[in-house]
Amino acid sequence: MQKFRTSFHPFLVIIYLVKWTLWVLPVSLLTGSLVALFLWLLETVIEIRFHYNWLLYFLPLAGIVIHFLYRYSGKNAEAGNNLIIDEIHKPDTGVPLRMAPLVLFSTIITHLFGGSAGREGTAVQMGGSLSHFLGRHMHLSKENLRILLMTGIAGGFGAVFGTPVAGAIFALEVLVVGKLKYNALLPCLMASILSNIVCSAWGIHHTNYQISFVSQHLLSLGSFGFNLLLMAKAIGAGIAFGLAAYLFVRLSHAIKRYSNQLIKVKWLIPVTGGLIIIVLSFLISPDYLSLSVSNPDPGAVSIVTCFKDGGAKPFSWLWKILFTTITLGMGFKGGEVTPLFFIGAALGNTIAMITGAPVDLMAGLGFIAVFAGATNTPLACTIMGAELFGADNIVYYAIACFTAYYFSGHTGIYGAQKNQIPKMPGRA
Amino acid sequence: MQKFRTSFHPFLVIIYLVKWTLWVLPVSLLTGSLVALFLWLLETVIEIRFHYNWLLYFLPLAGIVIHFLYRYSGKNAEAGNNLIIDEIHKPDTGVPLRMAPLVLFSTIITHLFGGSAGREGTAVQMGGSLSHFLGRHMHLSKENLRILLMTGIAGGFGAVFGTPVAGAIFALEVLVVGKLKYNALLPCLMASILSNIVCSAWGIHHTNYQISFVSQHLLSLGSFGFNLLLMAKAIGAGIAFGLAAYLFVRLSHAIKRYSNQLIKVKWLIPVTGGLIIIVLSFLISPDYLSLSVSNPDPGAVSIVTCFKDGGAKPFSWLWKILFTTITLGMGFKGGEVTPLFFIGAALGNTIAMITGAPVDLMAGLGFIAVFAGATNTPLACTIMGAELFGADNIVYYAIACFTAYYFSGHTGIYGAQKNQIPKMPGRA
Repeated sequence: MQKFRTSFHPFLVIIYLVKWTLWVLPVSLLTGSLVALFLWLLETVIEIRFHYNWLLYFLPLAGIVIHFLYRYSGKNAEAGNNLIIDEIHKPDTGVPLRMAPLVLFSTIITHLFGGSAGREGTAVQMGGSLSHFLGRHMHLSKENLRILLMTGIAGGFGAVFGTPVAGAIFALEVLVVGKLKYNALLPCLMASILSNIVCSAWGIHHTNYQISFVSQHLLSLGSFGFNLLLMAKAIGAGIAFGLAAYLFVRLSHAIKRYSNQLIKVKWLIPVTGGLIIIVLSFLISPDYLSLSVSNPDPGAVSIVTCFKDGGAKPFSWLWKILFTTITLGMGFKGGEVTPLFFIGAALGNTIAMITGAPVDLMAGLGFIAVFAGATNTPLACTIMGAELFGADNIVYYAIACFTAYYFSGHTGIYGAQKNQIPKMPGRA
Repeated sequence: MQKFRTSFHPFLVIIYLVKWTLWVLPVSLLTGSLVALFLWLLETVIEIRFHYNWLLYFLPLAGIVIHFLYRYSGKNAEAGNNLIIDEIHKPDTGVPLRMAPLVLFSTIITHLFGGSAGREGTAVQMGGSLSHFLGRHMHLSKENLRILLMTGIAGGFGAVFGTPVAGAIFALEVLVVGKLKYNALLPCLMASILSNIVCSAWGIHHTNYQISFVSQHLLSLGSFGFNLLLMAKAIGAGIAFGLAAYLFVRLSHAIKRYSNQLIKVKWLIPVTGGLIIIVLSFLISPDYLSLSVSNPDPGAVSIVTCFKDGGAKPFSWLWKILFTTITLGMGFKGGEVTPLFFIGAALGNTIAMITGAPVDLMAGLGFIAVFAGATNTPLACTIMGAELFGADNIVYYAIACFTAYYFSGHTGIYGAQKNQIPKMPGRA
């Protein structure tokens, strides 16, 4: 480690700033627009699926289409988010531009036919492949291309969830646990904000989650005992959120490995996965299919209902883990994050029921903390909490996210993520 | 860089959690209580000074007292915050326990006689020396002692400003720019929250700053043009905040160096400094003496008035830089952060007047961003903004803090801070 003590020239920083603004503009315009298109398509196909329930029966067929699409035209795009993370760590084979339409199309297909998946993987991959394409055509240096790829992640993430600051921090935090590329801070923030603005300029709105619980301010003496108790509950919940993330990660890996070992004819893997999902939707409930942010059926469990009393079943979180790990582990496409939101919010709802803590607060904590645990990004998730739910309860966000981070095991959902530092001192 | 893929035992993590809770408890109890005592004393002496203006004339004398106090009983405590940071980087001589009463007493003296200084240095040094003392008596390993020292910083910082999450992140961020010790996340957060609770249990309240400006939500199309314009203003302001931080840092170092070169009899340095402050208070204004968070004189400039239209003079920020760098560079004690808040809020006020941006928002941005630039802690400061002013404008906090970070030069106010990464790519 060294100290950087070169002379400081504000002019050079301004040139740097202008340069990056110009570089980031096309990335943001394209990423924001593509994310807008994606979110619009997603909303449309999810509505269609709610209308025509029989679409679910074609899920195995959809799996075959996705399988052969990637096999014959995917090149290395199959690696998804990990390819982008790897490429930032060690620029190598490049990220193919075709990754963008491929992942867009297959995610839409996955959702149309009821697969349980998310959005951020798709947005991040679109942002990553676009920024890589642009960066190569702008003849950037290796280091700058690396940062441009990060701005693609930030833009995709920020736009898809409507959380620009969290998007920027996420792009830094997801690469290496414990080592943040501060020299990419501003480019990532600009990309995230601009993509967000572009996406909303297309008329896209994000779901509004509400935590109406306002803790008596942490520091007011009157609510001392109550707050300490609530904090203890938040720690306990954080442990549960971390373990749920751990279960999700392990189950994902296990399903991927075993289905590849057991099923020798590869295209039969998504067929089997699709069939299992169909059976599960009858055995358990169709509520856990697709994105599940909201549901026209007033009795159904969705992320939105998890914020309300009685809005989730005691094991909703477990079912969503099952549906999602099978969907994604057996060849369908999409992100993991929205399902992780669901899993967390549902588990938070259940914990609130058991402990008597405020339901909306616990659902909100789960929403961000399971995600924090599964991706090892506790800072981005704490900030995401502030962006989505306001900062009144930020102390609880931090408690839940940091605790979940410790309890989620060493490996997150992104295998290409590096660890600069072990989670506990004295253990490597 | 390696991957840590050991087996994961939730039980071990729970033991780790319980262990750290037990270790952090005494640190928090003592730090929180001492910070409460400190804040109460501070309030008292500031009130006394407002009552007896002539106290200012004894500032040179107070400087002599502080000088000989540190010379004859200070050991290495003179190094202040840097000693604690160094000790975390490379456990060596230790942090003497006497640092706590010494810095407490001399900060109080500095403020009683009108020196322009802050609080966080004192709180951090008290937390640091206490935690070091406790850690040695608990026979902690080197690595754990290191983390316990960090919890002392987090506790001191979090309690003195009433911002627990920012306190925890600050302790991580201030050590090495770009490398965060994630394994200290939870201990630091616990210490920060508990110290905060303890401090408020003693009846201490923190000043409440208000930003009533609520931007039309970033994503609503209607306010598109306005928001882009306001963002551009925030970037411009961020540049100004960064340069102000740079000026502060350079002037601090220069005053310290030149006064040591020019004045050979060391105890004459604080005497000269005290005399200059007295003269400046007549030439410019007494508003810039002492802490300046608020002022009983309704016409005076203080941090609180900077949040209001016409609440600062065009060069208030520059005067506060002058008063503070002379006070701290010539032998008086206290922190730098509250003056940095003042400088930023006043500069924000001035910028708002020039650009027509909302005054309270700009003052708030300056409040956190000058500090972010001077200490190289943009993440902690963004979160501090959310904790103090709410998360509505968090996008602007991030813009201002990140921009100021780039424009504040390579060295912050803490010389012992390390840089993992240069501020701009391609330049080392």
